[in-house]
Amino acid sequence: MSMTVSPLAPKSYPDMPDIEGVAFATASAGIKYKGRTDVLLATVSEGTAVAGVFTRSKCSSAPVDWCKARVPGGKARALLVNSGNANAFTGKKGKAAVELSAQIVSGAMGCSDGEIFLASTGVIGESLPAEKFSGVVEELKAGQGNAGWLDAAKAIMTTDTYPKVATASVEIDGITVSINGIAKGAGMIAPDMATMLSFIFTDAPIAPQVLQAMLSGETDGSFNAITVDSDTSTSDTVLLFATGAAEARGVEAVESLDDPRFEVLRAALGDVMVDLSHQIVRDGEGARKFIEVRVEGAESDASAKKIALSIGNSPLVKTAIAGEDANWGRVVMAVGKAGEPADRDRLAIWFGDVRVAFEGERDPSYSEDAASAVMKEEDVIIRVDLGLGEGKASIWTCDLTKEYVAINGDYRS
Amino acid sequence: MSMTVSPLAPKSYPDMPDIEGVAFATASAGIKYKGRTDVLLATVSEGTAVAGVFTRSKCSSAPVDWCKARVPGGKARALLVNSGNANAFTGKKGKAAVELSAQIVSGAMGCSDGEIFLASTGVIGESLPAEKFSGVVEELKAGQGNAGWLDAAKAIMTTDTYPKVATASVEIDGITVSINGIAKGAGMIAPDMATMLSFIFTDAPIAPQVLQAMLSGETDGSFNAITVDSDTSTSDTVLLFATGAAEARGVEAVESLDDPRFEVLRAALGDVMVDLSHQIVRDGEGARKFIEVRVEGAESDASAKKIALSIGNSPLVKTAIAGEDANWGRVVMAVGKAGEPADRDRLAIWFGDVRVAFEGERDPSYSEDAASAVMKEEDVIIRVDLGLGEGKASIWTCDLTKEYVAINGDYRS
Repeated sequence: MSMTVSPLAPKSYPDMPDIEGVAFATASAGIKYKGRTDVLLATVSEGTAVAGVFTRSKCSSAPVDWCKARVPGGKARALLVNSGNANAFTGKKGKAAVELSAQIVSGAMGCSDGEIFLASTGVIGESLPAEKFSGVVEELKAGQGNAGWLDAAKAIMTTDTYPKVATASVEIDGITVSINGIAKGAGMIAPDMATMLSFIFTDAPIAPQVLQAMLSGETDGSFNAITVDSDTSTSDTVLLFATGAAEARGVEAVESLDDPRFEVLRAALGDVMVDLSHQIVRDGEGARKFIEVRVEGAESDASAKKIALSIGNSPLVKTAIAGEDANWGRVVMAVGKAGEPADRDRLAIWFGDVRVAFEGERDPSYSEDAASAVMKEEDVIIRVDLGLGEGKASIWTCDLTKEYVAINGDYRS
Repeated sequence: MSMTVSPLAPKSYPDMPDIEGVAFATASAGIKYKGRTDVLLATVSEGTAVAGVFTRSKCSSAPVDWCKARVPGGKARALLVNSGNANAFTGKKGKAAVELSAQIVSGAMGCSDGEIFLASTGVIGESLPAEKFSGVVEELKAGQGNAGWLDAAKAIMTTDTYPKVATASVEIDGITVSINGIAKGAGMIAPDMATMLSFIFTDAPIAPQVLQAMLSGETDGSFNAITVDSDTSTSDTVLLFATGAAEARGVEAVESLDDPRFEVLRAALGDVMVDLSHQIVRDGEGARKFIEVRVEGAESDASAKKIALSIGNSPLVKTAIAGEDANWGRVVMAVGKAGEPADRDRLAIWFGDVRVAFEGERDPSYSEDAASAVMKEEDVIIRVDLGLGEGKASIWTCDLTKEYVAINGDYRS
C-alpha cells in the first residue's frame, strides 16, 4: 500500500482559530500502528451541546450504537477516538469495550457516561483492547491542550495520506464565532470499513435540538454527497459540538430554528462540512482526478441526486476518467440505469464547458480535441441537463484507478 | 486491450444439435472491426413464435426500441445482429438506421418489417451506416446454413474473449426437442455499453404468449442474476425463437401455462440461460475468479437478491477476492449497506465451507489458513445466512482486477 501523499491534497492548511472550551491531546496506545499517534481525547467545557449523524448501515459498529443512544441527551464532555481498530462486528465483546472505554474517560473527567462520545476506525471484526486506554486516558487528560488541530486530525487517520481540517468564522451579535472541523477518510470507505469520521466544534451557544437540525440539514449536501466506491461504512460518524463559550463574550444562545442567526451559522457550518467532504474525496484511494457531477433539469432534487450518484458510482465512468477519455456514452448509460425519469431525446451532457451530447445524440459541433483537453485537467466537471424539470443536485467523487485495486486487494495481506 | 482468452473460459464446447427451421450466415460488413465477421443473419421458418426481454435503461438503443415494439406481434422470420456499433444514443439517425436495416432484410426475405428483429452491439453515440447491410444481406440470404453455432456466436462478439453457446434437449410427447442459445458480453456491460445479447432457438412448438412467460420467468435467475460491474447497458436484449418444427415430428403445440410440458421446457430453457449467463461472468473484463453469492434466511427472496447484489457489486468485496483475501468484514459491510432487513447479531458468513462469522462476530473457531485456502480456488462461493426468514437468492459475479481498470480506461483511446 502506497503512503505517498495524494496528488490532489490541498497545497496548504488554513490557520485554525482556537475554539474556546475545546482542548485536544493525542497519544500512542499501540492498538495497531507503530510509531504514530492512534488515540485522540477531545474535552469540551461543561454545558457543551452535541449533535450527530451516523451510518445507515444495518451492521453499525459498537461505538456508533453507543453514540446514537447518547446524542438525544444533547450534552457532551469528552470525545475519545482511536484508529487502527473499528470495533465493528465484534458482538458482546464490542459492547463491553465501548462501556469500558466510556467508564475510563468518565472516571478521569468526573462526569456521567452519557456525556462521553466514542468513535473507532480501522480493521473490522477484531476485539478492541479497551483496557489499553486506562493508562493512556490519564496521560491524555493531564496533557489536554498539548495537541493542535492538525495533530488531532493526524491521530485519527488510517489509510488517509494527509490530515483534513477546515474552518469558518462568522459574526453574530457583532461578535466573531468560529466553526472548526477535522475529518478522516480515504474515500467514503477506507479499507476494512473503518471509514469516514468527522468532528466539528464551535464556540457559538446553540441549543442541542437547533444544533441537530443544523447538522442534519447540511449533511445531505456535504458528507452524503460524496462517494469514492459506493461502499457505505459501518462506522460513519459526524459529531458537532457547541461549547457556547462565546456566550461569555456577549453572544445570546441560539434556541430556535426561526432565529435569523440560525441561517448564518448553518451556512458557515455547511462551508466547513463541504470543505472536509471534498478533502475526503481528494484523498480517495488511488484517486488522480477530482470529479464534480452536476445534474439539473430533473423532476425533483431527489431524482437529480440519484442520477448524479448513478454517474458518480459507475465503474465505467470512473475508469474512463482515469484514462482521460471523454467517453460521454458511459454517462448516458449511467443516466439510463438510474431508474429515475429521463428522456433520452432531451438529454444534454457537458464535460467542463464542452457540450458533448444534445437532444439525444452527439452534439453536432462535438470536438474530440476540446473534450479531451478537459479530461486532462486534475478537476473534471460533468454536467447533465435532463430537460424535464427544476430538480438539481451535485455530488463529488474521484476516478477509479489501478491503484484503488492494488490498495484494496493487498490491504490485509 | 488484451485479447488473451479469459482463464475462466470453458475448457470445451458442447455439440450443438441442429434446430430445424433455423439457419445462420455471417459476413464482414466492415462496420468497425477488420479481419473478422461482424454481421449475423439468422433466418427462422414461417410460423416461428418469438419472445423477448430487454434492458430497463431509460436510454435504450434504437434496435431495443424496435424489438420491444414488435415482440407483442409474436411472429419472426429473421434476426440481423451487427457488432462494432451499438446504434445507441443516435437520435433520429438511429431510428432511420433500424428502419433501413429492417427494410433491407424484409425485402430479401419477402416478409413484413414486423417479423424482422434487430440487435446492435459496440460503440455508443456513433451513427450506424445501415446502407452497408444492403449488399451483405443478399449475400447472407444466399449463404444461409453456411455458418454453425460457434460461427454465429463469434460474429456478435465485441471485447468477448471467447464465443458463448449452450444447449439442452428434453423429451416431450416422446419426442426429443432441443433448445440452443448463443450470447455475447464481457460482463453485464462491455466497454461502451454494447453489452449483453443472447439469442435462443428451439424447435418445440410453443405459442407466443407461453414462450414469453417462459422467457420472462427464467430471466430473473439467469441474466438478471449476474453482474460484472453494476453498470446496466442500453442494449441488453434476449430473444427466444420457437420454430415449431418438431410439430411435424408429432409434438403438439404448447399453448397454455397449465400444460405439464411447460415446466419441462421451462426447466431446460432455464439450464441454457443459466449456462450462458455464467459464461458471460467468466468472460467478465479482467476476471480471474468466478464468484457465487448465496444469501439465505432473508425476509423474502427479493430482499435476499438485493443483499446478494449489494455483496456482488461491492468494489471492496471484489478487490479483496482479486487479492485472495478472506476479508469477510467487507461482506458484513455490504450486507449492512443494502438497506434490507438484517440483524448484525444473527448474521453468519461462509467462504466455501469455512464459516468465518457467526452471531455477530468472528467465528470462534475461525482459521485464517482454512479461509485463505478457499480464496486461492478459481471459483469462490460466499454464503450468507441472515437468520431472519425463508428468503433466498443466488447471484454470480467476478472479481475486480487491475486489468478491468486497464481495459476500461484505455478502450477508446
